[in-house]
This record gives sequence, structure tokens and C-alpha cells, in this order.
Amino acid sequence: MAIETTTLKDGDGLRQNKRKFNFLHKVLPISKWLLEYKKEDLIGDSIAGLVVAIMLVPQSMAYAMLAGLPPQVGLYASILPILVYAVFGSSRVLAVGPVAMDSLLTLTGVAAIATVGSQEFIALALILALMIGVIQLLLGIARLGFLVNFLSHPVLVGFTSAAALVIGFSQAKHILGITVSRPEHPYELFLNLFNNIPSTNLATLAIGGSSILMLLYFKYFLKKNLESLNVSPSIANPISKVGALLVVLLATIAVWALGLNGDSGVKIVGDIPAGLPSLAIPTIEMSQLTALFPTAIIISIVGFMESISISTTLARKRRQKVDANQELIAVGAANISSAFTGGYPVTGGLSRSVVNSTAGANTNLASIFTAVLIAVTVLFLTPLFYYLPQATLGAIVIVAVASLFDFKSFKHIWAYNKMDAVALLATFFGVLIISIQAGIGIGVATALMLYLYRTSKPHFAVVGRVGDTEHFRNILRHNVKTCPETFAVRIDESLYFANTKELEKILLNAVAEEPKLKNIVLICSAVNFIDASALDTLQRVIEELNEAGVRIYLAEIKGPVMDGLKKIGFVDHFGEENIFLSNHRAMEFLGCRK
Amino acid sequence: MAIETTTLKDGDGLRQNKRKFNFLHKVLPISKWLLEYKKEDLIGDSIAGLVVAIMLVPQSMAYAMLAGLPPQVGLYASILPILVYAVFGSSRVLAVGPVAMDSLLTLTGVAAIATVGSQEFIALALILALMIGVIQLLLGIARLGFLVNFLSHPVLVGFTSAAALVIGFSQAKHILGITVSRPEHPYELFLNLFNNIPSTNLATLAIGGSSILMLLYFKYFLKKNLESLNVSPSIANPISKVGALLVVLLATIAVWALGLNGDSGVKIVGDIPAGLPSLAIPTIEMSQLTALFPTAIIISIVGFMESISISTTLARKRRQKVDANQELIAVGAANISSAFTGGYPVTGGLSRSVVNSTAGANTNLASIFTAVLIAVTVLFLTPLFYYLPQATLGAIVIVAVASLFDFKSFKHIWAYNKMDAVALLATFFGVLIISIQAGIGIGVATALMLYLYRTSKPHFAVVGRVGDTEHFRNILRHNVKTCPETFAVRIDESLYFANTKELEKILLNAVAEEPKLKNIVLICSAVNFIDASALDTLQRVIEELNEAGVRIYLAEIKGPVMDGLKKIGFVDHFGEENIFLSNHRAMEFLGCRK
Repeated sequence: MAIETTTLKDGDGLRQNKRKFNFLHKVLPISKWLLEYKKEDLIGDSIAGLVVAIMLVPQSMAYAMLAGLPPQVGLYASILPILVYAVFGSSRVLAVGPVAMDSLLTLTGVAAIATVGSQEFIALALILALMIGVIQLLLGIARLGFLVNFLSHPVLVGFTSAAALVIGFSQAKHILGITVSRPEHPYELFLNLFNNIPSTNLATLAIGGSSILMLLYFKYFLKKNLESLNVSPSIANPISKVGALLVVLLATIAVWALGLNGDSGVKIVGDIPAGLPSLAIPTIEMSQLTALFPTAIIISIVGFMESISISTTLARKRRQKVDANQELIAVGAANISSAFTGGYPVTGGLSRSVVNSTAGANTNLASIFTAVLIAVTVLFLTPLFYYLPQATLGAIVIVAVASLFDFKSFKHIWAYNKMDAVALLATFFGVLIISIQAGIGIGVATALMLYLYRTSKPHFAVVGRVGDTEHFRNILRHNVKTCPETFAVRIDESLYFANTKELEKILLNAVAEEPKLKNIVLICSAVNFIDASALDTLQRVIEELNEAGVRIYLAEIKGPVMDGLKKIGFVDHFGEENIFLSNHRAMEFLGCRK
Repeated sequence: MAIETTTLKDGDGLRQNKRKFNFLHKVLPISKWLLEYKKEDLIGDSIAGLVVAIMLVPQSMAYAMLAGLPPQVGLYASILPILVYAVFGSSRVLAVGPVAMDSLLTLTGVAAIATVGSQEFIALALILALMIGVIQLLLGIARLGFLVNFLSHPVLVGFTSAAALVIGFSQAKHILGITVSRPEHPYELFLNLFNNIPSTNLATLAIGGSSILMLLYFKYFLKKNLESLNVSPSIANPISKVGALLVVLLATIAVWALGLNGDSGVKIVGDIPAGLPSLAIPTIEMSQLTALFPTAIIISIVGFMESISISTTLARKRRQKVDANQELIAVGAANISSAFTGGYPVTGGLSRSVVNSTAGANTNLASIFTAVLIAVTVLFLTPLFYYLPQATLGAIVIVAVASLFDFKSFKHIWAYNKMDAVALLATFFGVLIISIQAGIGIGVATALMLYLYRTSKPHFAVVGRVGDTEHFRNILRHNVKTCPETFAVRIDESLYFANTKELEKILLNAVAEEPKLKNIVLICSAVNFIDASALDTLQRVIEELNEAGVRIYLAEIKGPVMDGLKKIGFVDHFGEENIFLSNHRAMEFLGCRK
């Protein structure tokens, strides 16, 4: 149907030439921005690259820990994947790397088949990244980017909010310095934590708690304070982003100086191997692929969803375009490169991309700077993180995900539409009660079922003429003129198998309740298609009503629907003279005039 | 949404009284027709009851054999279930009993967990009937009858045609007198048969072949021949229905007289225990319930679908009504009664119901007569069937299902709508290649996916004024007048999560391609609802276009949609002055006049 959509034709030849020229730019966006690079963009790109790297070093380690992986895996996932995205990505400012949601999904997916922390666990996380990359690449090549549209806004809000709770509470053990067994279902996490509160390690809590407070200050108050001191936003902005790095430095120094990792029992990151990750081909068994497949599918979609939302929003602000399918290809390639360099699943991150954009990034050169800085960190700076307390990394995760819990959207959706709210709640509780993976499946299924339910019970209205106009509206809502022998019924849904029985009921009831009725005009302005089941029913009802002495007329049938009806011979059989361009004309014809 | 549908109010008090009075008639339809019984209906009812019984005796045994059950099970399923339906059923003429489709589904479902012909197999078929009965009853009480609407016409055509092939070929072994191993997938049946053709038993083939020929003559030619001999239709009609019984008698006599069951190797029905089935409570294990559950769900829906289609069609011809939920309850109760009297799954059968109706049935008293006659048969006449050849029963099934293969509908659907044709083919090949049960699941899922796909890529049209009217149509299809600075865009779909991205693309592209554009009127005549995701997108796009200097106006928003937009504060924020009752008014306001 959509093939026949309207575009205004203004020189098709010209446009075709443009299209050929654009193809290289489209599949390899770096070919455009690098060739057209302007010197004046360099300052913004380098500052943004530096600021993002400063955020990314602690975040990538924190997210790796969240995923149950050693900290260096997070750093490895922040080098080659970023470079690969810079080559293929259609967004100029998306900051790719480890993110909280994908890390949590990696943890739950892989922990189901391997012990957290084992060599097998690390290998599986890497295979998972490879699978995700291949899936995203294939989806992008097959132009299936539209599939993400099936993740509705309510489902995403429910999912993100529940995941934020799960992620936040999964890090609470690091803040409290306690050991908690991995729960089978997310909600058990809260019980496990609660039971273990008495064994809190106070030194750890002091580090973790003050880390959280400092991060919150940097996130929510520092910028305002600096601005009230008349510091210009272009300086205040980057400064407020170094919070995580500063907290990491202070906490590391505190642990080292006070020797808290000894008897006080503060857990530290410890040795991180120095040197770049080596290129390696993961060895894969079929059974691993099967076991990881559901998780891979979900991360492919959810991760991409996060990425495309943020890249679209940022592009819009700059009047640029991103192409969903090209983004799938770019993020997919980034994941594959992550798998070959000892990393784990990556995607475009919300907060870092915003920082990248506001810190002045103009092109993906900013990302290239970031990747180089991370590589330098991995090569030379890892010994600095030896005394870094895990509690501080936990604090970084908690503060990052706290803002993802979105009660405001829930209230808004609840007020607007209860069906959407049901989908949201189904997802939210599905995640908390069953599992992260199941929750999103439940949410999508609920949203689809509710949509089908809604379209299977179509709204309809008997309409009458508004004043002396040619416009007709619901007789129950508007002050309109009608005629006793002629009904104009507007059916407010495409006619398809799930609602054919309703259509039948509506027409037969109208006839049963109005003995005087002679004509029914069925207004099809809201009928966007009629499928074979509905056509079958419509033909039958028309015949039956004819026998009962009631004639059916059709009005305002849309072009594509009319094409179909003509093709199948319905129009010839029904009589073209019984089909009217507008309800106004039909009513005039039936003697129901202005 | 559907709550706000229109009904013409003419004395609601009166209607409420009627409703209370009608309640008993509704839940116990026998209370109406038996009390109001007219003497003149008796002749029609008794003739119809007799004719249906004559058809049902051989058919019920044949279908039991198809299901892998002894012939008496079919007869048992044709006594109490018929009486129970007569009490609860809202159709006056539906003939309940064993049918081909349910029998095949019973065979495939139960044979997966028990050996065909074993005592366990018989017990499981009975438990299956109980499960189906309970499911149907619950669906009916929960008013979920609308669920059957999700079995679209193309899926049913594909399913029925494939099942007819499978049923027909499953009986071929009886006609040929050969033994064929049960195939794992339906299509293997054809191969197995083909390989065994050389071992055909000629005496059996003679009986089976001549049975088929005689049945075909009765079904397709006898009535015409009688009418050309000036026999009145009221006599010709019933006579043409005794075909099956006559064939049964002749074949039985032939086998008995010629002793074909001896060395010639013609398989016969053999001993059928005389006497009514005893009331017995089936013993059930949990594991059986789990194993049978998918089959039970499918027969519940498919069986009911067959039943409700035929009862609706017949009721319409008589200007009577059937209530889908009451029908579920009645058929469910019939199935439960079947389980307690040694039967197996039953439903309303197509051909017998038509015969019942045309033979003159006026009320369910006809069915009561049928049940009594079957009971008499079971009590006294079973010895007569000793020499009945199985080939003749196979012939009865083959001739009954041959007309279910529906190539005409396929051609029609293919010509009308390729998406519907895809759903049909998916079901058809799903049934043949994988299994009966999987096929219908594949079909329903395909139909739903295609529907979602279709609504996720909405058609839209830029429209212009038709002549001097207030009617606006697609500028590409009609000769219309437009204005350069103002676009009127009609979006032909409800706005929901799966198509929000498309809406965004449509509006942004329109702006990108027309630099002169200042106003866009979004015509919502085909927008039946806007969900939370779409509202979110719409608000965002409106703001962005505003920034780009393009103002959005809305026109022809429907009542229920407007209610939602008002409730959430969208209308206040957007400005009620920017929303127009009709596109005509919007265009006048924007200076784009007639």
C-alpha cells in the first residue's frame, strides 16, 4: 500500500543523479565528513574527544564490573568499536561504548550458562558481542531497521525504569561492601540485599556513599554553582563532566593513603594488564550460539533502540539526518570489532553522546580522539587504577542509571491512555518479577495484543450534516441534520479479519433498530484497506440487506482501496453508480439535501 | 474506544425490561423454543431429525475411524452431546456431532502420546473432549467469543484445504486395502501411500471405489435426475441424503453375501458392543493435560469456528440470531457431556446442519429426534454393521471432505490481495509440511504480522480541493486545486507505536522538499486513535517544524481522539484555534479558498 505514497515530483532525473553520488557517502559516511573536513571544527572535536574520554575511562570499567567482567574488558570495548563506528556511522556525534543496559543484559544472559568471573564467562560475553554484531549487520543490510518501531514508548519506559531499578540495586552490594548471591528473579535481589544489610562494611560504605554524593553534586549542582559565579558555560560545562574522573582519583588516593584495602576490607580493582588488546578470533561452539541467541536478539534490538533514539535526537537539533539501517550496520560492525579485540557488547550511549555534542563535537573525529586517548590509557595508565575501590565504580553506575527511572512518563501515559499504561506496567513488572529478557517480550506482546484488540472493536458513528456545509459528523456529539430513511455510517477502522464480525453487527443492528430505514451510506474515509475476509463479509452483508429492502451505498473510498475493489470486480458487481466520491454527494443523490 | 459507539436511543427503559425477560431465554434457549412450540413445526422437525440420523449413523462411525477410534465412539458422541446442545444452543438448526476436522486433529494430537487403537488412546480422546469442553465453556463465560475473529478467511481457506487433502489421503489406505505407517509430517503420507500402491487389495478397492462412485452420484447428480423426472424437491431432497446409508447397506450385504472378509481380505468393522454408553467420570493425570493442551486449544477454536460459521449463516437465512458466546457455552457443554458418555470431541457440522435445515427443521426438537434415533441404533442395530467394510466408511469421509478443498477462494484472494494470499499459503504449506496444529499457528501469526506490517507503513496523500466543493482528495489521483505555501496531508492510519517513525518521516520530508512551505494541515479523518508513543512523536515534530518556520494545523480529529487530546492537555498547549472541524475550514482560514 505504502508504495503509492505521494512525493512531489520536481525533476526526477536530477534526483537520480544525486542519489548515485550519495551512495558512497551513505554506506561509508566517513568518506563525506573527512573529505569535507573544515579546520575550524578541530577545536570542538578535540575538546569533546577529551571530555568523553575522561568520562569513558571510569564508566567503561564500571559497566564492565556491572556485566560481571574484569575492568579492562570495558576499556577494550572502548577503542576499536569507537573507531569502527566513526567510519560507518551516519551520526556525527554518537559516542559508542559500553552502556548500563547492555551490560546488565550481558550479565543475566551469560550468567545463565557460565559462572560469573570465569574464563568461560569472559569468552561468552565476547561471543555475544559477535552475535549481536552479526544480527545488527544483517538487519541493517535487509533494511529491517523499522522493526525497532515495535518497541513502543510505554514499553521502553517500563523497561528502562525497571532495568534502572535492577541495575541500581545490583550495585548496592558494592556500596555496602557485602556479598549477595545472584538472584534467580530480579525482585529477589531486594530481599537478598535487605537480609545482608547487617554485614555492611563501614569503610566501604563511607567510600561508596561519599562517591555518590560527590557524583550527584557534579551532576546536578556544580554547573549552576559555577554559572552563579559567572564562569562561562563553555568552561562550566566540560568541568562538570570530569566528576567521575575526579571521584575516581580522590577515592583511589584515599584507599592508597589510608590502606583501606587491607584490614578495613575495601575491595579494590587490583591489577589491570597493561597493553592493547590483541586481535583474536573467538572460538565458538554451536551450543553456545543456541543458548545465547535470545539474549543476542534482545540486546541487538534494545541496544540499537538506545543508540538510534539518541542519534536521531541529536541529529535533529543540528538539522542533520541519520539513517536507521546505516546505523544498524555501523553499530553492528562496532560490536563485531569489539568481539575481535577482547571487548563485549557496545552501543551508542545516551549521556556520553549528549556530552560529546554539547562539548562541541562537530564530526566523528571527536570519537577518534576519544578512542586514541583510551588506547593511551590502556597502554600506560592502568597501574593508576590498582587502588581504585569497587564501591566508587558502583557509585558511578548508580548515579548514571538513577535518572533512567521515569515516573513522570508513567503518570502522563496513565492519564492519556489506559491501554498504553497497561503495556508499560506489564513490561515493568515482567522485568522485575520474571527477568529482564522476559519483561521486554511480555511488553511487546502486550502492546501488540492491545493494539489488535483495539482495532478489532472499531468505533463507528452515525453522522449528520454540520449546518449548511458538506461536512458530516457524529449525531451524538454534534448538532447535525439527518434524514429518517437514510443513515450515513462512518466506520472508524480499516476493515480486516479481526473486525469483520463487528462490521456485520453494526450494519445489521442499525437495520434491526430502524424499521423505516431504506438506505445506508457507508463512509469509508477511515478505511485504509479492506482485506479478503472483510471483503467477503461486506459482499454478504450487502446482499442480505438488499434482500431485506435496505440498499447500501459507499462513499469516500480511498484510492488504493478503490484500486483493489476494481481489480477484483467488486465495483462492477456492486455498481459504480452506488459509490460516491463524498458523503455529501451520496446524501444529495439520496434526497437528503442541505 | 468502542464503548462510545452509537446506538439510536429509543426508550432505554423499555429495552431494559426486555433485557431482563430475555436473560433466561439467552442462557437457556430451550426455555424459549419449547414453551413457544407450535404443533405445525412437528412434521418438519421429525423428518429432519430422521434424515440427519440416517446421515449421522455412517458418518459418525466413519469419523471415529478417521480419528483412530472404534466406530461405537462416534455413535456415543452423537447421543448426549446432541441433547445437551439442544438445551443450551442458540441456533435452532445446528447439527452437533463428530466432524472430519476435529477427528483428524484428535488423531494427530492423541497419536503423539499414545498408540492408535490402544485403550489409552481411547481414554485420551475422551479427556481431550473434556478439556475442549471446559475451554469452550470458559471462553464463552468470559465473553471471549470474539477471539475466533482472529482466524481470518484466508487462514481458514488454507487450513481447510490442506486438512481436506490430509484427511482424504489418510483414508486412501482403506480404499486400497493397504497398511501405511503413520507419517511424522503430513506430506510424507503421500509418499508412504505411493510406495504401498503395489500391495493394493483388489476386492477392497472394488468395494471402496464403487462406494465413492455411488456417493458422488448421490451427492452431485441424484437430485437433478429426480427433478428432471418431475419428483418434487420436498421428496427429492431427503432421498438424495440417504446415499451414505444405502451405500453402507449395499456394501455390507455384498461383503456378507460374497464372504469378502475371508480370503479376499476386505477389512470389516466387526463387533460393535450393543447398549448405551455408561456414564463414567474419566480419570485424568496432570501430564496428560499438559500434553493434550495445545491440541485442546486448537480444536476448541477451530471446532467452534466451523460451528459458529454454519450456525450464523443458517440463522441469517431465517432472520434469527445466534450469540457467539452462548454458542461457545453450548458446544462446550456438549463436549463435556461427550467425555462423560464415552465419546470424543464434537462440534456443529457443516453438511449435516445444512441438511437439517433444508429437510425442514424448525427447532432443536429435530436434533432431539436425531439423538433418540442414534440411541435406538446403538441399542438394537449394531449387529447389522458387523460386515460393514472399512473401505465404505473411508469412502464416506473422502466424499465428505472433497468439497472442502477450495481452489476458487485461493484464486480470488490471490487476485485481490497478495498479503492475504501469503497468509493462506503459509497456512496451507504449514499444515502439509509441518503439522495440522503448527499450520494454523503459522497462519494466524503470519496474518497478524502482515497486518502489523501494513499498518506500520501507512499510506498518506497530499490532497487538494475537488472543484468548488469542500471535498479534498489526493493530488496524484484527482484533478484538484492546491496552494503553494500550504500542504494538506491526509495520513491514512491510526497513529501508534509501529508507525510513529513513518509519520515523522512523512512530515519532515515534505518540509525538506518544499522550501516555500509555511503551513501543513494534518487531516486526521483516518486517524482512529493516537497512542502515547505517537502523541510523543507528534508533539516533538510539531515543535521542531515550528522552529523551522512551518506551522502545523490539525483537521477532522474524531470525537474519541479529541477527548484524549483534551484530557492530556495537548489541546490547551497546541491551541484549540489550530484545530479545525474540517479541512475545508482550515484551508479557508489559511487563505487557500475555493
